[in-house]
Amino acid sequence: MLVSHLEMGMLSEGLTQVLIPVAALVGIVFALLQWYVVSKVKVSGDSSSGLSDKLIEDEEDGVDNREASIKCAEIQNAISIGATSFLFTQYKYLSVFMCVFAAIIFLFLGSVKGFSTKSEPCTYNKGSLCKPALANAAFSTLAFLLGALTSVLSGFLGMKIATYANARTTLEARKGVGKAFVTAFRSGAVMGFLLAANGLLVLYISILLFKLYYGDDWEGLYESITGYGLGGSSMALFGRVGGGIYTKAADVGADLVGKVELNIPEDDPRNPAVIADNVGDNVGDIAGMGSDLFGSYAESSCAALFVASISSFGISHNYTAMSFPLIISSVGIVVCLITTLFATDLFKIKDVSEIEPSLKRQLIVSTILMTAGIALVSFFALPSEFTIFNFGTEKVVKNWHLFFCVAIGLWAGLVIGYTTEYYTSNAYSPVQDVADSCRTGAATNVIFGLALGYKSVIIPIFSIAIAIFVSFSLAAMYGIAVAALGMLSTIATGLAIDAYGPISDNAGGIAEMAGMSHKIRERTDALDAAGNTTAAIGKGFAIGSAALVSLALFGAFVSRAGINTVDVLTPKVFIGLVVGAMLPYWFSAMTMKSVGSAALKMVEEVRRQFKTIPGLMEGRAKPDYANCVKISTDASLREMIPPGALVMLTPLITGTLFGVETLAGVLAGSLVSGVQVAISASNTGGAWDNAKKYIEAGASEHAKLLGPKGSDAHKAAVIGDTIGDPLKDTSGPSLNILIKLMAVESLVFAPFFAAHGGLLFKYL
Amino acid sequence: MLVSHLEMGMLSEGLTQVLIPVAALVGIVFALLQWYVVSKVKVSGDSSSGLSDKLIEDEEDGVDNREASIKCAEIQNAISIGATSFLFTQYKYLSVFMCVFAAIIFLFLGSVKGFSTKSEPCTYNKGSLCKPALANAAFSTLAFLLGALTSVLSGFLGMKIATYANARTTLEARKGVGKAFVTAFRSGAVMGFLLAANGLLVLYISILLFKLYYGDDWEGLYESITGYGLGGSSMALFGRVGGGIYTKAADVGADLVGKVELNIPEDDPRNPAVIADNVGDNVGDIAGMGSDLFGSYAESSCAALFVASISSFGISHNYTAMSFPLIISSVGIVVCLITTLFATDLFKIKDVSEIEPSLKRQLIVSTILMTAGIALVSFFALPSEFTIFNFGTEKVVKNWHLFFCVAIGLWAGLVIGYTTEYYTSNAYSPVQDVADSCRTGAATNVIFGLALGYKSVIIPIFSIAIAIFVSFSLAAMYGIAVAALGMLSTIATGLAIDAYGPISDNAGGIAEMAGMSHKIRERTDALDAAGNTTAAIGKGFAIGSAALVSLALFGAFVSRAGINTVDVLTPKVFIGLVVGAMLPYWFSAMTMKSVGSAALKMVEEVRRQFKTIPGLMEGRAKPDYANCVKISTDASLREMIPPGALVMLTPLITGTLFGVETLAGVLAGSLVSGVQVAISASNTGGAWDNAKKYIEAGASEHAKLLGPKGSDAHKAAVIGDTIGDPLKDTSGPSLNILIKLMAVESLVFAPFFAAHGGLLFKYL
Repeated sequence: MLVSHLEMGMLSEGLTQVLIPVAALVGIVFALLQWYVVSKVKVSGDSSSGLSDKLIEDEEDGVDNREASIKCAEIQNAISIGATSFLFTQYKYLSVFMCVFAAIIFLFLGSVKGFSTKSEPCTYNKGSLCKPALANAAFSTLAFLLGALTSVLSGFLGMKIATYANARTTLEARKGVGKAFVTAFRSGAVMGFLLAANGLLVLYISILLFKLYYGDDWEGLYESITGYGLGGSSMALFGRVGGGIYTKAADVGADLVGKVELNIPEDDPRNPAVIADNVGDNVGDIAGMGSDLFGSYAESSCAALFVASISSFGISHNYTAMSFPLIISSVGIVVCLITTLFATDLFKIKDVSEIEPSLKRQLIVSTILMTAGIALVSFFALPSEFTIFNFGTEKVVKNWHLFFCVAIGLWAGLVIGYTTEYYTSNAYSPVQDVADSCRTGAATNVIFGLALGYKSVIIPIFSIAIAIFVSFSLAAMYGIAVAALGMLSTIATGLAIDAYGPISDNAGGIAEMAGMSHKIRERTDALDAAGNTTAAIGKGFAIGSAALVSLALFGAFVSRAGINTVDVLTPKVFIGLVVGAMLPYWFSAMTMKSVGSAALKMVEEVRRQFKTIPGLMEGRAKPDYANCVKISTDASLREMIPPGALVMLTPLITGTLFGVETLAGVLAGSLVSGVQVAISASNTGGAWDNAKKYIEAGASEHAKLLGPKGSDAHKAAVIGDTIGDPLKDTSGPSLNILIKLMAVESLVFAPFFAAHGGLLFKYL
Repeated sequence: MLVSHLEMGMLSEGLTQVLIPVAALVGIVFALLQWYVVSKVKVSGDSSSGLSDKLIEDEEDGVDNREASIKCAEIQNAISIGATSFLFTQYKYLSVFMCVFAAIIFLFLGSVKGFSTKSEPCTYNKGSLCKPALANAAFSTLAFLLGALTSVLSGFLGMKIATYANARTTLEARKGVGKAFVTAFRSGAVMGFLLAANGLLVLYISILLFKLYYGDDWEGLYESITGYGLGGSSMALFGRVGGGIYTKAADVGADLVGKVELNIPEDDPRNPAVIADNVGDNVGDIAGMGSDLFGSYAESSCAALFVASISSFGISHNYTAMSFPLIISSVGIVVCLITTLFATDLFKIKDVSEIEPSLKRQLIVSTILMTAGIALVSFFALPSEFTIFNFGTEKVVKNWHLFFCVAIGLWAGLVIGYTTEYYTSNAYSPVQDVADSCRTGAATNVIFGLALGYKSVIIPIFSIAIAIFVSFSLAAMYGIAVAALGMLSTIATGLAIDAYGPISDNAGGIAEMAGMSHKIRERTDALDAAGNTTAAIGKGFAIGSAALVSLALFGAFVSRAGINTVDVLTPKVFIGLVVGAMLPYWFSAMTMKSVGSAALKMVEEVRRQFKTIPGLMEGRAKPDYANCVKISTDASLREMIPPGALVMLTPLITGTLFGVETLAGVLAGSLVSGVQVAISASNTGGAWDNAKKYIEAGASEHAKLLGPKGSDAHKAAVIGDTIGDPLKDTSGPSLNILIKLMAVESLVFAPFFAAHGGLLFKYL
């Protein structure tokens, strides 16, 4: 059925089919190229060979210290082995989960029409015949598995790159801060581009393959593709939660004994938890975050595709317009590629003070370039006018409306990023006030830090609200979905900046452990401090995009479940709303307590080793690193199950027992409440971390007054930093996934809930 | 217009008109009687006269220490003068606010029909003529002022009683813990009964007087009566916020220097902030809480009356059924009176261990008796079948439906109370786990405490959700309103238990300051520890009832604004929802930061005094208490304005600029998010306080391992306790008022918003 008054866009179907895979391949090639450049830094005993052909620009420091280089190689190896073995153990657990959940998807969706193999009349494309529900069940399951595997691959690749890059960054730091920066940043870019391109390519190929079966049944095709988002996000959940518990148990445990009790520096090789801590950075901040952002990307694409498939694009089979979300992502890869050159080639870092501006320039450059990209795509790929499905009605939308939807998402992301920076960087007054409150001890530090986190939600929430209002008003739920895509369109750059942080952090750790000079440690510290702020910005992006994504998925779910209003003034919806708003608290309680308990165990182990291993404190004996790695591993694998179960089971139980209205309430409640908890937790933690760094660095008169390391104010700041660890790296970022995952799961299971849900009310 | 198929209940109109005022008067007489008994304890130099006629039961301790008695009188006097002068200063500010806001109400509501003095056709009672909008504006304003004055009176009376009772409790503690308990509890009862009876009586008389003008126009009558709730709650807001900042600035300031830096005990007379701290207990915990619960009571009554007035009760002019909410409160006073006798006369406290069970018995006894009371009222006062207004439709309801609505509210309150106790009393594992985490320092203590608070929301939220679902399903918004009333029906007992806590706390402070023996201090400490738990229970009640009240008000607002659905899937509502969910964070950020800044100033002043006043530390010189009182006063008056403005202006601005749908979203969002923040903040704070007390008391093997006072674990616990102070006594409890007040304000201004609201969308 062709809707007659709708024209096609200018971009032909054939060109679209070339453009997307080419962009993805360009991204992959670019990533490999960056990897090649990084790999030229040799980490081995024979360090001189790798250096001979390079211009030595800065003052060099210990470049020919062969022993340090060998030590670096050793430590890198230990970290890499630890991270790989943890991830493999985790994947073993996850493969069980994947199989079980794949079976659940197949059974639930298959039962919608009693495992019938007969074709059905379509729901939205009236008059046409669609594939049987059983096929949708099978393909949804397949898409789920594909999404899960891609997510796992994303996390694993990220980890591999990061552990490959950390010692190289340390070694380059001997030659100057600029060299080290470029190495860390290039490695981050490898991860960013691989993930973005990989996600796009797998999704593109899946759609092509699914089409072989589905043919003209786009409703069924894009409905089953949503499984891809579910797979991606469910792996991300376990990655974030498991990785988050792992890294923070080690970090908190190492700090509590090392920094607070024994007064030895961070990353000191005498501390038995130090390897576990460095492994944690790679499995939590790198692998977890990679899976998380891949999940967001997959979900927002799926939400947009699903809504488009039941709108005029899908019904009139306009392939190019249908692929609008994928084209946006393709252009995003190209934009990010150009942006990266600004950091690696166009500007050279000469001084420590140039690092943060250079990273922030990435954000602004990519946003400006991408705005132009969106305009081009909206103009060439879309018909000038079309209709979008809007809860039972059709809304007429123009192509420039969609431009505004995508662009407002993109710019809202930038505002959130800059706000996060303002509240978490110690260059501004909020963090300085928190640092100042350390004068009167840890209690006031915590009170001020919590207040800062609460306050920091205001601007992001208003940005999100404006983005939602504009995109919702212009193009209903499709508008929200593409706004989310807009925020994520520069994901390659975002991930590069994000991954840069933990790589620098690890590089610093390796320098300390390899016993390198104070000067080198200072350089890596400067890289790390900038990384802290960009990590907070990355978290801001992740949360903002999660809010938009989950609203888009929520809309898609409601459409798919066949309800046209979600009225707060009905008891079914309201109880869902209030219970949904509670879930982020329940989830945070679990994850915080898990980190706390695991940290307690870690503290006891570290204390035990210092007590029982003679000569450890004096550096004459080696600690038992493996035992600490084991404590973190066991804790994270055991403790990731209850919060994971909470998130995965809530939609299933609510939908089955209480029906789609209550489930809609739960999704809305957890969304509006979870965003606040996530933003405030992340920013409070980031602020405490940087308040501590502010006192340690002593760069201003005020900071000197509070310091130096070991002063009472500094001790109070360390307590705040430790409390912030689980907030900013475990609970906060996991909440993104909670809100997205429950929404995408509801969407995938919507046909089942609509057909068989609400058992409790049916029998009461 | 009489709806023919509806019969009347068995209770006649005449009897109803006698029953309500008689119950109120009985409550007042009972309160005065208790006061008389308390007053028999003489606080003066001549202490022997008051004792001569009493049975001396326990081992006496220093009864004839005339000097101590004089000192007690002095200290009590200082506290009373400080509290009175603070409240009067606060009331001066508030009277300005009251006048301004009264003018706003009159102008906004008067402008609805352009200040017309012509009668209008009624909105719900079709075919009848109602009074002009201008009259409603005038009477709403009047009701607002009446509510505000009653609220102020409630807070002031509570404070007077508490400062009258504290030294008397100290003196009675010399004769034994039983005597002291009864004195503190009777004083609490004075406050509880005066407030409950007073609130009921003023409301009853106002309705009678308003009726002289309104006659048969019950729509207009009960619409303007809602101003009473607004007045009560807006005063409560400033009382809670101002009082909360006052008390916690002093408390945190006193603790940070006294306990943490100088290692002197709590309430030590050498500490310059100690008088301010004790004054704070009276203006924050007593006056603030009194106003708060009075506000809840007034609002739930108004919400129920408003919904009833547009239902068959109002339309068929069934006076007795209309008065159902007031009759429930009347019966509640009688039930609480009987319950009080259980604590004061039927059971005598012989041992410290009997205190907490005795207080908890109050809750369970009052709940059981009240359930019978509700059954009687529902049976006698209501017709067996009637209809309730339900967003444009009429719902048929039977009298036993309403019994279930009220009863489920009452029992949900009990469940919330007991859950709160479980999470905040150190007799159970959650607080003991938090205490245990102090072994590894303040950071783990804070992590575990936050996790405990998050976890403690689960059961209360499920209880509230079930209460909402049942009462909403049975009797729509009226059901919710009477469920809230059910939870508040035993308010006299609840307040008595609540007020008991700060009175005991003050008694302990006076004992310490008057230099009484260790034994007496131990007795008052035992009273205080039980008071801590009951205070947490009281806060649980306050939050639970606030959630129900604000939902009922929300429903009334939506009805009055003439919208029939609040659809989450419209951009207007959704942005309201997400911004509304952010408001509790914004509000908490303000109040926490205020406490933090004021505490910093207090710390500096206390440090300054210890440095500059020679002999202060050795007890040879007196500190300058007045300066600390001034710091608390100034801070609280200055800092209560921004959060107050946020709460008061949000509904006005949202309604005027964005219209009723967005405002409905804001109310729903702040309700579902605020409840979680409030419960978790209160319980986290309560748990930290009792974890510290657990270590200090050292009553078990485990506790002894962590203690004694001054150990590292204890120091970590003190830090947690200090952080918890603003959470549990400033931010947390103020949030109740935020959610209720925005709802009642929206309800009062609903006619204006419906007529002239949404300017921004109109012109876009």
